[in-house]
Amino acid sequence: MECEIKDFFANPENFYGKEVTISGWIRTVRDSKTFGFLEINDGSFFKNVQVVFDDKLENFEKICKLTIASTVSVTGDFVKTENAKQAFEIHANKVEILGEADSDYPLQKKRHSFEYLRTIAHLRPRTNTFSAIFRIRSVAAFAIHEYFQNNGYVYVHTPIITCADCEGSAEMFKLTTMNLREPLPVDEEGKTDFSQDLFGKETYITGSGQLHGETFAAAFRKIYTFGPTLRSENSNTKTHANEFWMIEPEISFCDLEQLMDIEEDCLKYIVQKVMERCPEEIDFCDQFIEKGLKEKLNKLLNSSFVRIDHKEAIDILKKADRTWEFEPEYGEDLAKEHEKYITEYFNGPVFVKNWPKDIKSYYMKLNPDGKTVAAVDLEVPGAGEIMGGSQREDDLEKLQKVMKERGMKEDQIYWYMDLRRYGTNVHAGFGLGFERLLMYLTGMENIRDVIPYPRTPNNCDF
Amino acid sequence: MECEIKDFFANPENFYGKEVTISGWIRTVRDSKTFGFLEINDGSFFKNVQVVFDDKLENFEKICKLTIASTVSVTGDFVKTENAKQAFEIHANKVEILGEADSDYPLQKKRHSFEYLRTIAHLRPRTNTFSAIFRIRSVAAFAIHEYFQNNGYVYVHTPIITCADCEGSAEMFKLTTMNLREPLPVDEEGKTDFSQDLFGKETYITGSGQLHGETFAAAFRKIYTFGPTLRSENSNTKTHANEFWMIEPEISFCDLEQLMDIEEDCLKYIVQKVMERCPEEIDFCDQFIEKGLKEKLNKLLNSSFVRIDHKEAIDILKKADRTWEFEPEYGEDLAKEHEKYITEYFNGPVFVKNWPKDIKSYYMKLNPDGKTVAAVDLEVPGAGEIMGGSQREDDLEKLQKVMKERGMKEDQIYWYMDLRRYGTNVHAGFGLGFERLLMYLTGMENIRDVIPYPRTPNNCDF
Repeated sequence: MECEIKDFFANPENFYGKEVTISGWIRTVRDSKTFGFLEINDGSFFKNVQVVFDDKLENFEKICKLTIASTVSVTGDFVKTENAKQAFEIHANKVEILGEADSDYPLQKKRHSFEYLRTIAHLRPRTNTFSAIFRIRSVAAFAIHEYFQNNGYVYVHTPIITCADCEGSAEMFKLTTMNLREPLPVDEEGKTDFSQDLFGKETYITGSGQLHGETFAAAFRKIYTFGPTLRSENSNTKTHANEFWMIEPEISFCDLEQLMDIEEDCLKYIVQKVMERCPEEIDFCDQFIEKGLKEKLNKLLNSSFVRIDHKEAIDILKKADRTWEFEPEYGEDLAKEHEKYITEYFNGPVFVKNWPKDIKSYYMKLNPDGKTVAAVDLEVPGAGEIMGGSQREDDLEKLQKVMKERGMKEDQIYWYMDLRRYGTNVHAGFGLGFERLLMYLTGMENIRDVIPYPRTPNNCDF
Repeated sequence: MECEIKDFFANPENFYGKEVTISGWIRTVRDSKTFGFLEINDGSFFKNVQVVFDDKLENFEKICKLTIASTVSVTGDFVKTENAKQAFEIHANKVEILGEADSDYPLQKKRHSFEYLRTIAHLRPRTNTFSAIFRIRSVAAFAIHEYFQNNGYVYVHTPIITCADCEGSAEMFKLTTMNLREPLPVDEEGKTDFSQDLFGKETYITGSGQLHGETFAAAFRKIYTFGPTLRSENSNTKTHANEFWMIEPEISFCDLEQLMDIEEDCLKYIVQKVMERCPEEIDFCDQFIEKGLKEKLNKLLNSSFVRIDHKEAIDILKKADRTWEFEPEYGEDLAKEHEKYITEYFNGPVFVKNWPKDIKSYYMKLNPDGKTVAAVDLEVPGAGEIMGGSQREDDLEKLQKVMKERGMKEDQIYWYMDLRRYGTNVHAGFGLGFERLLMYLTGMENIRDVIPYPRTPNNCDF
């Protein structure tokens, strides 16, 4: 019976006394004169299964010399063990060698630094750490889809190619089919002739699907996006990558308070499902990546998120008996140290809402005070801002006014303005950076270690 | 009680005799002197709910003059109707006008051509057709995630930015942060100085995640990707777009026969779930988009897919008593007319396998005959090729040989070659074009009508 190791761990009693066959990669080989042990991982589960083999096998000598990472197919009896770390093992009746690995395999049985493992990104998912991280990544992604689909949201694939320069092209990659190895074609005035490019004009990769998402929320009421986002920032930090994934829900007939309800519910759902479905991986992260991870996550599940105005946050910071690197100010953004203090002050996640309008985006709903916008950032202990959202300005004239003040061109996003002309409504949405969430869920400190193949300035290997 | 229309349709008995509140967009307004009807859609469901209002409401006159697409909040009694099209309606006690739409709303109550609707892509999801199409798109996407997650696959986000030019840059977009409005920077030899670009070298958008996917299949056994794919082909057809979504599963310890089992199982699962979860939308498509759609889908569910060699397919085509635009040949690809004939010949889906090696990709497994590769295309009635897959060449030397023959550079994908050095195994994978699947599921004939904001040559609007 061809089996997967995950099924052994899920229901060992189904297999006791039976002959089973598994195929997988060798993690370790140990042998005495007449018998030996193989630790085999078949990719289906975080843990390995132990195979006992002895010199009754005709290829005993060959098995003893097997290199790490070699592939084998093992047929043997599934046996209950007593007083062993694992409740079961396989007593091999046959070990078929499928593919012998070269002996210079870079992942020998020792600890490697995360920095080194980044240089072998194609092999690192075979380590315990990255096996845990990338399985959690997959399970978290699915939990996100589940949350929104179960709650009646429509998944929208917003385009990543755009010609609208409304975000300011500084942060956007340019996309072209022109030959960049040769001088660019020019028109009669000597300017680059973009009519020769595939789309006939300058083209970018968008850094957000929000505006397009809003158009679909005006049809389906509740929508979400979940896709890759490319930003061309030249910043080399632990929390920046040029390619990352983002979730952007938009909800019609929804105000800021309702938005916070959704954000809290959504985050708790994801944390809950990852803890339920990846117990081995979370245990591993708790033990080796971030001590106290499980306690942190459980605390989040059992807390009710505090909601305070930006002004109240500054009040608290100003009253704090400590010195700041950056002095907190009413009209300004929160620095990392401020975010940290606020979550520690409330000993849990905090929604900071109603921000000074000048430091927030043009599309955010102006509050009746004329000074703040209905925006909200969710700050969580240990990770800072994890979600950012707002009510959107649903009043056409107010939106036009702020765009004019900021020197923006309305005609490039006439279709976005149309939403305020045809069926405007109180609506809101938020963005969730998937990698930041993963860092929070696993305790990993560098964004490069939660992305399969990270892209950062001057680094596009693999 | 604030409600969503989808809940009325799911369980009307929960609401009879109760007062309910809904918020939504007006689809139609009709009135007599003393009463009137509103058809309201709130985005949660394909169908509208009818609201009856009368002149006891203080704003009766205003309601009668409401424009299409205006937003309202209606509170009223949920009432069972007799002999009406719908089993229920709402008798309004209050109609609050939230946002009046301009009267030049482009979607008035008449049929519009798909061509016209593409010019108002931001409003077309509010029509019945595109409401159906894009909800099916969302439900199908989730069914795909469900299928793979339930079967133990790990979802991998492969990078879309790449520096490896292994696919041939002709089909790949170039990505840059250099200023394209000015002459490009050059080095001492007068060549473009890519060291000034963000990644320090020429960068592309990859057209497939397969190679990276294989590296993760060598760790997690079964993986899948699902993300946007950009290809820069300059082709203006009904089935080509420059941005589309693709699913690429890779499975270790899996041969061609097992791959076909998975493909068949996967496709049936998606079709089944879409039919179960979008009955109204599929009914609509069956009635207005493709007559016989439901019969076609049901037939697929109940059929066992035929499996024939490419050579057998050509035998059948050559024996056919008809003339061809393109004569079928043993060493060549199948034309659209051939695909159509084969699916009609077998009256159902057909796997065509073991293709001539010269017309297939370098990474496909060479068969023992030395002439064919273990590749398989799934042809379905009405849509032609919908999935393409293969066993991958797991023998390092054979892979090196074919790459050399094709003039490919090994060093750019040394990490891909490493998979054959460290733990090679019989493995396979396939690609599923999401839009082609959607065209099959809905009957839509133009790829531009199953993508929220399609990007095609010279068209990057919105």
